[in-house]
Amino acid sequence: MNRTELIAEIKRKKSFLCVGLDTDMAKIPEFLKSSEDPIFEFNKAIIDATLPYAVAYKPNLAFYEALGISGMESLSKTVRYINSLREKVFIIADAKRGDIGNTSERYANAFFNNVDKKENYNALTVAPYMGEDSIKPFMGFDRAWVIILALTSNKGAFDFQMDVVESGERVFEKVLRISSQWGSIENTMYVVGATKADMLLDVRKIVPHHFLLVPGVGAQGGSLSEVAKFGMTDECGLLVNASRSIIYASKEKDFAQKAAIEAKNMQMEMSKLIKLYSKL
Amino acid sequence: MNRTELIAEIKRKKSFLCVGLDTDMAKIPEFLKSSEDPIFEFNKAIIDATLPYAVAYKPNLAFYEALGISGMESLSKTVRYINSLREKVFIIADAKRGDIGNTSERYANAFFNNVDKKENYNALTVAPYMGEDSIKPFMGFDRAWVIILALTSNKGAFDFQMDVVESGERVFEKVLRISSQWGSIENTMYVVGATKADMLLDVRKIVPHHFLLVPGVGAQGGSLSEVAKFGMTDECGLLVNASRSIIYASKEKDFAQKAAIEAKNMQMEMSKLIKLYSKL
Repeated sequence: MNRTELIAEIKRKKSFLCVGLDTDMAKIPEFLKSSEDPIFEFNKAIIDATLPYAVAYKPNLAFYEALGISGMESLSKTVRYINSLREKVFIIADAKRGDIGNTSERYANAFFNNVDKKENYNALTVAPYMGEDSIKPFMGFDRAWVIILALTSNKGAFDFQMDVVESGERVFEKVLRISSQWGSIENTMYVVGATKADMLLDVRKIVPHHFLLVPGVGAQGGSLSEVAKFGMTDECGLLVNASRSIIYASKEKDFAQKAAIEAKNMQMEMSKLIKLYSKL
Repeated sequence: MNRTELIAEIKRKKSFLCVGLDTDMAKIPEFLKSSEDPIFEFNKAIIDATLPYAVAYKPNLAFYEALGISGMESLSKTVRYINSLREKVFIIADAKRGDIGNTSERYANAFFNNVDKKENYNALTVAPYMGEDSIKPFMGFDRAWVIILALTSNKGAFDFQMDVVESGERVFEKVLRISSQWGSIENTMYVVGATKADMLLDVRKIVPHHFLLVPGVGAQGGSLSEVAKFGMTDECGLLVNASRSIIYASKEKDFAQKAAIEAKNMQMEMSKLIKLYSKL
């Protein structure tokens, strides 16, 4: 999906919800565990139930890699399933990659130019520590985005991201300023944690038009209305992710219905916020 | 392998060579491509040929992920093969991971506590951008190491790693100082690129005893003797990686022999440097 298509979907669904597929064998309902591929069955049910309320899905690769080859197969099936849907859905590989140029090229091909096109993602998260040549290889693919970590939602964000450098900027601000020159608002997004919602004001001074992927609402405690208040643009410019609060809303037979209710609740709040703060 | 075992192997082989398995279908010999699993066959031949001269192997995960499930299967077979060898060999997953705590735990389990123990790695590279809670989950596994990016070998290292923060340190120096308090010399190493060998002096002021994984010798142009001069400790304290210069020394039938010659040449130089700068 390109930027125009993404904004159209946000407008149509009145939602900027991204559902995080942090699928964990220990947390999925017992009755699914006897199926041939419990991880995929769980994901499929969650996707089917939440699709009216979500514009994006974000598999967290660690959860699949932890299961070895079978986990990667469940993930492939999930991505193929999303790509087979009639409506356009934005798929984010939450992989936090980033390496020297020739290696980042490999990762870019793995996620955006897969041997089987049906397994392509729309976006990939990357860490900025290794600089320009680690990130540029992810730019320039058709309808593909790089999502650069700027200010993360965890406690460790305070270890290095908030340090003030010579220019007077904090590290995350310099990351935003410098890396926004490498690409454009058509191929670059940023991760900014909802747990630091007021800092979205500082972020928007540097990247007023970029889409932001905002984790940390839900289980991590961030506030959706604050995120919208401080971070929303005329064209929305936000994808807010919720994982555990939606996908593990219930561990029983009704897990998918409960996930749908959680997603719908978020979508209804989002609908109001879009009306209040954007021009969509 | 724990620290004592690793040092013993360095002493026995008179080598601190790590061979990077950046295996690329486009660069392996033509005649291998008709075999059932060309990537694994290539890796196995390289390992068998270079094992007398190397103490560590470092598969670069991007190269395997780029091939999808079949690439991950080739990688699994490679790791199982190394783990099946009679002698102890240090296996590094060059994956540059790092995420919020509950996700890093997944990655740690994927690499260090695999469902099949024969697929475990000894070490994993991680990016420090997300701070303490993204790195600590990798510590505390038996005989497993976290290798934190400090000063990388690429041009992009100058984008953020060299910035001076409030404390007067450069970002990579603060990363070294702070993160060295999270673990110990028994479970933490650092990536410091050979392309900036003189800066190993600055690195050693902060982490005098930690092992350093040094990429950038060979195709990237770093000097082995300078790395040893500025970075070696009494117990060696170095693993120097070479990938392309060894594994692609020839594209013909003799690729493994040529790789062995390249590895042996490095080992012979390393033997002299160990004598000159360490107490092994």
